[in-house]
Formats: sequence, C-alpha cells, structure tokens
Amino acid sequence: MSKPKGFEKPVGVRDYLPRATKRLRRIERGVLDCMARWGYETIKTPTIEYYDTVGIASSTSDRKLFKLLNNRGQTLVLRSDLTAPIARVASSLLREEPLPLRLSYHANVFRAIEEEAGREAEFFQTGVELIGDRSPEADAEVVALAIASLQAAGVKTFKFALGHVGFLNGLFDEALPGRSEDQKALKERLLHRDYVGFREAAESLGLNREQQEELEGILRLRGGREVCDQAAGLSRHPLALESLRHLCSVWEALDDYGVSEHVLIDLTMIGDFSYYTGMVFEGYAAELGFPVCSGGRYDNLLRQFGRDVPATGFALKTNRILDGVEDPSPEEELPVLIVYDAARRAEALAEAGRLRTEGQAAVTRLANETGESAEAGDGGRYARVLLFTGENAPASRG
Amino acid sequence: MSKPKGFEKPVGVRDYLPRATKRLRRIERGVLDCMARWGYETIKTPTIEYYDTVGIASSTSDRKLFKLLNNRGQTLVLRSDLTAPIARVASSLLREEPLPLRLSYHANVFRAIEEEAGREAEFFQTGVELIGDRSPEADAEVVALAIASLQAAGVKTFKFALGHVGFLNGLFDEALPGRSEDQKALKERLLHRDYVGFREAAESLGLNREQQEELEGILRLRGGREVCDQAAGLSRHPLALESLRHLCSVWEALDDYGVSEHVLIDLTMIGDFSYYTGMVFEGYAAELGFPVCSGGRYDNLLRQFGRDVPATGFALKTNRILDGVEDPSPEEELPVLIVYDAARRAEALAEAGRLRTEGQAAVTRLANETGESAEAGDGGRYARVLLFTGENAPASRG
Repeated sequence: MSKPKGFEKPVGVRDYLPRATKRLRRIERGVLDCMARWGYETIKTPTIEYYDTVGIASSTSDRKLFKLLNNRGQTLVLRSDLTAPIARVASSLLREEPLPLRLSYHANVFRAIEEEAGREAEFFQTGVELIGDRSPEADAEVVALAIASLQAAGVKTFKFALGHVGFLNGLFDEALPGRSEDQKALKERLLHRDYVGFREAAESLGLNREQQEELEGILRLRGGREVCDQAAGLSRHPLALESLRHLCSVWEALDDYGVSEHVLIDLTMIGDFSYYTGMVFEGYAAELGFPVCSGGRYDNLLRQFGRDVPATGFALKTNRILDGVEDPSPEEELPVLIVYDAARRAEALAEAGRLRTEGQAAVTRLANETGESAEAGDGGRYARVLLFTGENAPASRG
Repeated sequence: MSKPKGFEKPVGVRDYLPRATKRLRRIERGVLDCMARWGYETIKTPTIEYYDTVGIASSTSDRKLFKLLNNRGQTLVLRSDLTAPIARVASSLLREEPLPLRLSYHANVFRAIEEEAGREAEFFQTGVELIGDRSPEADAEVVALAIASLQAAGVKTFKFALGHVGFLNGLFDEALPGRSEDQKALKERLLHRDYVGFREAAESLGLNREQQEELEGILRLRGGREVCDQAAGLSRHPLALESLRHLCSVWEALDDYGVSEHVLIDLTMIGDFSYYTGMVFEGYAAELGFPVCSGGRYDNLLRQFGRDVPATGFALKTNRILDGVEDPSPEEELPVLIVYDAARRAEALAEAGRLRTEGQAAVTRLANETGESAEAGDGGRYARVLLFTGENAPASRG
C-alpha cells in the first residue's frame, strides 16, 4: 500500500466548499427551526460511543460500524445514527423529564464501507425522536413533521409511503406459522423490493392455494386510503388487524393535518425489521429519485438502555437533499472590497466596521505599492470597490 | 475490564442537552455570521483524515492523535484541528482560487487523552484561516476578527496577548548560538509559562553576564506598545529585529482598528514553536480565567501539502466559551400546548399550523380520555394551553 499523498483524503469522505457548506447550513437551520416550532428541542451527542452500548443497540449492521480501540482496550464506535445515542440520553440524563420527550438533531454519522464506488463513509442526518407516546397521533405527528421538514429544506415535490411492520409480522405468522426462517427470507425480499424474488420464494414454500394468495396479496397493498380496507380482507390475525387499525388512524390524522395528498400506503414496505416495531415510512423526492427520509416506530430500543418506553421518529438523509436541491438564491451576496493606503487606514477600517454592522460583508486591503489597479484579478469576487487612497474623498468603483 | 453499562459513554466526551445545545448553536451562528461579514466563507472537512497527510501535518503531538485503521490497513486519524485539513483543501480543491483565501469553520475536534480527570476527548473549535498574505495587515486582520468573534460569542471582557516566535528564535540564536537543545529546553519553559524554571535553566547554562541578561530580559517583555521599544534594546539579531518591526506594525494596525485597548504584547509567549513561524496570540476572558482563543502565523504548513504560501489564523475554544458565557435570554420561548378531542382535531391542528407559521412553537395532544386536566404535570413547560374540546369555542388557559 503506497503512502497517501498530501492532498488525499480517505475513501468515502468529502470536503464541503463554501457554496455547499452554505446550502448545508441553510438546510440545517431551516429544518431545525421548523422542528423547534413543533416543540422539538435540539440535542448533541458525542461522535464516539461504546460499541457495547450504542454500537450494539444501533440498527447498523456490525460490519458497517466504524470501530476503534481506546487506550483502555475498550471498543468504541463512531456513531452510525442518532436514534441509539438519543435513547441512551433519554434513559440517563433525561430520565426524570416528563414524557413525551420531543428531541431533534442534526449530526454527521459514519459507516465503514466496502470498496464500493460512491458509498459515503460520513454523511449528515437531520431528524427527531418522539419518546413516550405509543398512540397513532404520535406516529402521525412525526410523519407530518417529516413533510414539513422536507418543505423547510427546500424540497418541493415528494411522496411519503407508510407501512406497518406489525401487519406483515401478523400475516406471516398466520401464513407460515412457526417457520421463522422462511418468514425472514420473504421479509428480506420485501426489504430489497425484490417482488419477483418474493413471488418465487412464496411459490417454493409448498403452501396451499389460500396461504399462497395471502402472501402474494401483500404485493397489491400499495395505494391510497383504500389499501387499509383491502388489507383487512387478507388476514384475520389479531396483530395484523390491530396494526391495520393503527395505520388507518395515522392516515386519518394525516388527513386532519391536511397533508394526506403527499401520503401513500405501502404495506410491502418493511424497513429494518429487527429494529422497527410498528409504523414505518419513507419519503421520496420527485427531483431526486431515491429516499430522502426514513422513519418509524421502535418501541423496544429504549428498553435496552433501561427505560422501557415507546418511541417514534425519522431522519432526513440530509446529504441527498443537499446534492439534489437547488440553491434558492444563486446570486450570492458578494463582499465590498475596501482598498486603502497607509495614511487613510483608520478611516478605511472604520468604514469596513460600519458596513459590517449593517450586515454587509466587507474585505479590506492595503493598496498595492506599485500602483497596480486594486481590482486586478478580482473580477466577480466583490460587489464593489471603495478606495481610500491619496487625498481624495472615498471613491466607489466597480 | 467490565463491560460498559447501557447508559455509559466513553471518558472525555459529553452530551449537550437542549439548553447547552441552544447556547452552542447561538455561538456558532453569531461567530460564523461575524466572520462572513469580514469576508470569510465557511467550509467543512471530513472528521476522518489520513494519518500520513493531515495527521502528521497537524500541530497535535502524535500520542494525542485519535488513530484508527481502515479496512485497507491504512492509519486514519480523527481530526485534531482544522488548520491542517484546511491547508489540504487550499492545496487541492481550492488550488486555482485567487489569493488571499479567507475561510472559516466551526467543527468538533478530537484528542486521545490520558486517564486525566476533566480532559476532553471531543470539543468544538470555531476559527478562520487567512491564506496567501504575509503582511502585518493580515496578522492584524485575524487578531481584530478574533476580538470581534469573541464579542459575537457574547464574551464581554477579554484581553489578547501578542508575541512573535521569530523574535525569540533570533534572540536565542544570538544568546545561545548553535546550542539548539538548550534553546529548546528554554522554549519549553516559556511554553509552559514556567518563568522560575526558565531563570534557573538560564543560570545553569554557564553564560556570560550579558548573554544571561539578554535571556532574563525576555521575562520583562510584557506590557503595552512600549514593549516593542524595550525589546529592540535587547537584541541585534536581524531576525529578532525584523520580527519586532512586524509585531509593531500589527499593533499599529490594531490601533487603527480601534481595538488596541484589548491588546497586550507578551514576548514570552511562544505558542507551539514547531508549528508557528511568526506572530502568535492568545485571548483570555476575564470571566473564565483561561485562554478562549489562540492563533498565529504558520507560513510553513501549506508547503507540506504542495502549495507554498503563507497563512495566519486563529481558533476559538468554543467549549470554554460555552461553559463560561451566560445565556443572554434566560426566559426561554416556551411552546403553546394545544389539547383537542377527536372531533375537533382538524381545527386544532390548523391552529397549531397557524401559530408555527407565525414563529410560535406549538405542541399538540389528544385530550386524555379520563378527563384528567390537560396541563397536569406540565407546570412550566408551556407558555399557555389552548383547548379544542367539546362544543365550546377554543378556550385559552395557563
């Protein structure tokens, strides 16, 4: 392995130059301000956590965790999401706070990557956790807030798909009782949206016609509010039916929020099924073509940190939004350039201070001794040039 | 080593709860906005860098670097400052940009720590780099901006001390020609402000009276503008004299900025002498008692990345400011609580939306079926409570 050159950086990480940083900060500010208006308070957690606590509790697969050793020989991880760290905080420092907790975050997260092109090892997430409320109202609130957050980030056209892990769990238990490996294989196919593979796998299980139709029926459960009723005809399993009632209640609340036009029901959607326990959802931006938001209910996570309370939330995939959303104000506010000679420096610096107080960016520069034009080479960098040189009154050029 | 418990986090890292996060974000925003008005554009660099590039170039001692291995077997580091990463960016992605570059940042940085109480393994820095200008004007600009940045962060009373590595290097070369180990030992004492140890070391070197007085004279070079003249009497070494002229020019420019009342000259101050090449400075807040800002000129760093240009800059120690500065608005803007029953949900959610559009935070909640008072247990959490329950017109309570 040859030594990296001075200007190289590791695979999967990036530099954000001024224009991208400005967009990123605008998204961060807009989204966190939106979340604050919904009563969500921002917290920050460390970049480094124990593998044995947050690492294990996170939904990230072990091989994708970025691990390191401290000098006590303990394994640490770079955080791979904020949900597990916030569960830790809710179970420790915020243990005595009355429920529900409404918390928001904007943070970088890490994934150890294989040698694949274009996979990011470090990226940003902006999201919320609503902790201590198991009602459909709580799930609807986070979906409605996800919609408001995408709008605050500048995404104009998007759709959200809602599913429910409990519906699928109930239906699979009914169609394939006790066959957890077969259930898992089918769920993996749904997770990867491999519907052809799902159908093939269902056919290979040696089921009777009714069971087979029940399983294949799942693939038709995508659409509007009517999907809830269709799905109710597919299963009599109590968990499946209870999950459907919950999901319908979420949809109705979203209708009352006035946002159901953005929402589809997709009961083939399963999310990370080792992690989510109820409603799951994803947001897609028309401009971008891949998910820009994912979330759901994870009622079992906080128990791992010693506080057994339900929770629901989402994370925006901030980098995808950043790379896909246009800059709303392409004309940058350029600074004023103030050029002075030694004798008039105090006067020039006072003028720069005055402009800055007014919110105008100003850059100052001692005039070139050769008498070369002050603006040489500065084309397009400055809004205008103010000269404090010689005996003259300040001249404005540019 | 026992396994860490679920709620534990590694030594040296911290969680920022909502109040601290709000203060941190206010400082970040205030300071970066201030820097933007001085023409500095914010950039972001990755958390992870190659040890062989940024790790080696950073001013952090090797044992304090947080190291990890990637799956190619390369050694990576968690960034320990932003100066080396920005030098890398200035030498690669920004290589074609006209000089000077004015760049700002707000970022978390990492130090592997010994088992010492209270040392932080992760903390924030907010700073600038002015790249491509070797003039005293450039040094004065970063000091004046450091002062403006501390003010923007809410620090009210502070002093800045200016020194110059070149002056000390010249003077030591004159007093101890060729004795680089002895010079280094004396510099170490100055770095740790061990003036008694410095005097003892100077006495043990077997110097003549004149040389000894020259070395001990350094310790008196702390004060106002007059120190420049005193220092000029102490050495005839060309580098020392040239450095003094530069430092006096910086001070005079700071006087023209109208900020010299905040500035002292302290020629015993040496900064990290393997890194800084010219002026060095530190800022102290009266409220805090330890440095809240450090900076200086580092003309040799960018050469390591293949672009041989001079640079100067500073970093605020943002955590120290955070922990020391009072919250300027202790009365938080509390959200309004909106309680509704099922029949009036759409009306209640519309009101919540209206309030949020006006910038008022609002939290919504389905009324408790037991008829329990909606505000029970919410004392102090909400500005007021709006009820959308029963047949009545919306009632305001609280």
